Amino acid sequence: MKQIPLQLLDSKALDFRLSRIYRFMDNLGASTLVVSDNANKFYLTGRIFDGWVIIDASRRDIRYFVRRQPELSGAGVHTVRKPEEIPAVLAREGLNITPAVALELRETSYANVVRMARALGVKPEEILDGDAVLMGARAVKAPDEVQKIRECATTHDRVYSRIPHLYREGMDDVELQVEIERVSRLEGAIGIMRVSGDDMELNMGSVLVGANADTPSPYDFALGGAGSSPALPVGADGTIIQRGLTVMVDTNGDFNGYMSDMTRTFIVDDEVCDEARRAHQLSIDICRRLEHDARPGTPCSELYETAIAMAREAGLEGKFMGHRHQAGFIGHGVGITINELPVLSPRSKDILEENNIIAIEPKFVIDKVGAVGVENTYRVGADGLERLTVCREELVSLED
Amino acid sequence: MKQIPLQLLDSKALDFRLSRIYRFMDNLGASTLVVSDNANKFYLTGRIFDGWVIIDASRRDIRYFVRRQPELSGAGVHTVRKPEEIPAVLAREGLNITPAVALELRETSYANVVRMARALGVKPEEILDGDAVLMGARAVKAPDEVQKIRECATTHDRVYSRIPHLYREGMDDVELQVEIERVSRLEGAIGIMRVSGDDMELNMGSVLVGANADTPSPYDFALGGAGSSPALPVGADGTIIQRGLTVMVDTNGDFNGYMSDMTRTFIVDDEVCDEARRAHQLSIDICRRLEHDARPGTPCSELYETAIAMAREAGLEGKFMGHRHQAGFIGHGVGITINELPVLSPRSKDILEENNIIAIEPKFVIDKVGAVGVENTYRVGADGLERLTVCREELVSLED
Repeated sequence: MKQIPLQLLDSKALDFRLSRIYRFMDNLGASTLVVSDNANKFYLTGRIFDGWVIIDASRRDIRYFVRRQPELSGAGVHTVRKPEEIPAVLAREGLNITPAVALELRETSYANVVRMARALGVKPEEILDGDAVLMGARAVKAPDEVQKIRECATTHDRVYSRIPHLYREGMDDVELQVEIERVSRLEGAIGIMRVSGDDMELNMGSVLVGANADTPSPYDFALGGAGSSPALPVGADGTIIQRGLTVMVDTNGDFNGYMSDMTRTFIVDDEVCDEARRAHQLSIDICRRLEHDARPGTPCSELYETAIAMAREAGLEGKFMGHRHQAGFIGHGVGITINELPVLSPRSKDILEENNIIAIEPKFVIDKVGAVGVENTYRVGADGLERLTVCREELVSLED
Repeated sequence: MKQIPLQLLDSKALDFRLSRIYRFMDNLGASTLVVSDNANKFYLTGRIFDGWVIIDASRRDIRYFVRRQPELSGAGVHTVRKPEEIPAVLAREGLNITPAVALELRETSYANVVRMARALGVKPEEILDGDAVLMGARAVKAPDEVQKIRECATTHDRVYSRIPHLYREGMDDVELQVEIERVSRLEGAIGIMRVSGDDMELNMGSVLVGANADTPSPYDFALGGAGSSPALPVGADGTIIQRGLTVMVDTNGDFNGYMSDMTRTFIVDDEVCDEARRAHQLSIDICRRLEHDARPGTPCSELYETAIAMAREAGLEGKFMGHRHQAGFIGHGVGITINELPVLSPRSKDILEENNIIAIEPKFVIDKVGAVGVENTYRVGADGLERLTVCREELVSLED
């Protein structure tokens, strides 16, 4: 059988990640970290595979346990059929599971956590919070990750620049979204939205037209929308796109395993009310202001407060981040999943760090008109925010 | 605020489900079942909402605890901010959490199971397996579910009948898949694949052309494929569609919250080797044979054995269900998720029951040519299998 390397990261990329992981493990007092979540395995290897990564912080050692994929090989790669075989493999290598084991308690099912804990001889009540380690490590991106997200945003820009040309008179929101999805997929989008949390679901993003922008959704995204089925009640609901309504496009860029997050707002034949224009401009102004204010060391809650103060000053606070249901954040980290650290919310304890990648999305919902505003993905640079999604932010007219 | 009913099922549909749930709870010795997984909430209410369903088998009572969606109302609907508020609400209603609580241990994260158990005063080691209850109940479909899957299969057929017309000379597998996705979405596909298990991911299905059909994948689907990115290593990989290769299309029908599963195989200009034609016909023959053999009471393992015996007799056993990596099943239940009970595998203990909905997918991988075979979705009727995916099964020629 032709062997292929399991580990796709070069040593510099891996070392960057491991040094962050070790630091978070040391802070938590964890000596062993078991990684089974797909997003986390991708972070550590550059691929999805069937199995587990086990990191031993005390010995500064990383091992890969692979199931059902004998073609994957390389240093530290071991083939097993099930978790129960892991301790014997480690023992053969002169390693043993050290105490203080961290597992992904939020990203892995109860059954799988308990099975792994048993296999490793750890009592469930002694398991440490491996998600804190991984989410903390992933919040600051390695140089290769920044590069991937940069490339992702460039492709995302290219897709968005085509949106006005995808419109045809009489289209509904679902039809426009489908054409955007098609262009995204042809540009290489993998077509799934990786998102943290048990209950979060979305296809490739959302298109909100008119009053549907104010329909609450069970999912914890910035805005909702009824969706076209109670089986996935979020986003486009079949509203016909027409003059006077706004068309908010928030479809994700997922072109290489990393994501960029971007929203732009479109109108038809350049027609929309003044309040919508004013609120849209305020969203852009809020972005400019936060770009100016934000730098390593800035508390994320401060950015939220600045944004809401600007909305208040403009008399638009009641329409900020939704109307019937207001989202409790104006931005979030982005990376392999769409909702990473840091979180830009009033009670966030997160402090910006260089090479956080964050999306900022100050949005307004205008009665009977729809949602307005922009969302951009940024790199936190030493001197401030670097905007990665650079396509035009003004209200763009859809013309058949 | 305009109120809308949380419960979308009529009383007959709900009673059918509850009677199955009570039976499985009684068998397990569970008096309380807490439901938080989206697919399971959809099963019990016909919608996705933010919160939990709690079923009390001893009192034959169902309650809905809703978070962040005050617009949802109806009998038994309570609004809470967090799980910790549930016991007080129940106490006010003169109810209490009865002992023997079942939670979804495989479909819910460790953190959420532990939090809910604590909120309800249950020791983690005493939690019962709620997934066994829900998967068991869901395996036999209610009449309204059968109807939904029937409608789904009809739309699925319509999408597949258009595939030959979506082909253009020089296309690769990704491009064809994107056009199929577009047509599916325009026909109402919700665009996500609900699948059970922590590690399973796929967008709307897969298109496998030529040798890529034999590339192993980390996911536990019948066949693999390299995918177009190590970030989602499954399915189409950019192989150009050309004469002599087979094009296997296995994209799901997800048109109303329920799914149908169907595979058809295409060739270009009617050109393909005789071995591929023979194996494809054998796949159809296996379907016909299993349609004849299967009825309520048939052990699923027997169907697997019949299929593999037919492959062996034809000298095609080594190519059955993959070549480099052979799948360990020939079929599976389908419903809200793509992988439900029963499982058609050699060691399956499942026995067919009337109104199981199952997909049967006897596939072969022919060296250098690609995958051949069909997959159909069936209802298990009193006298045998009723095929729901009825579009033509022969090798269909793609012609520009």
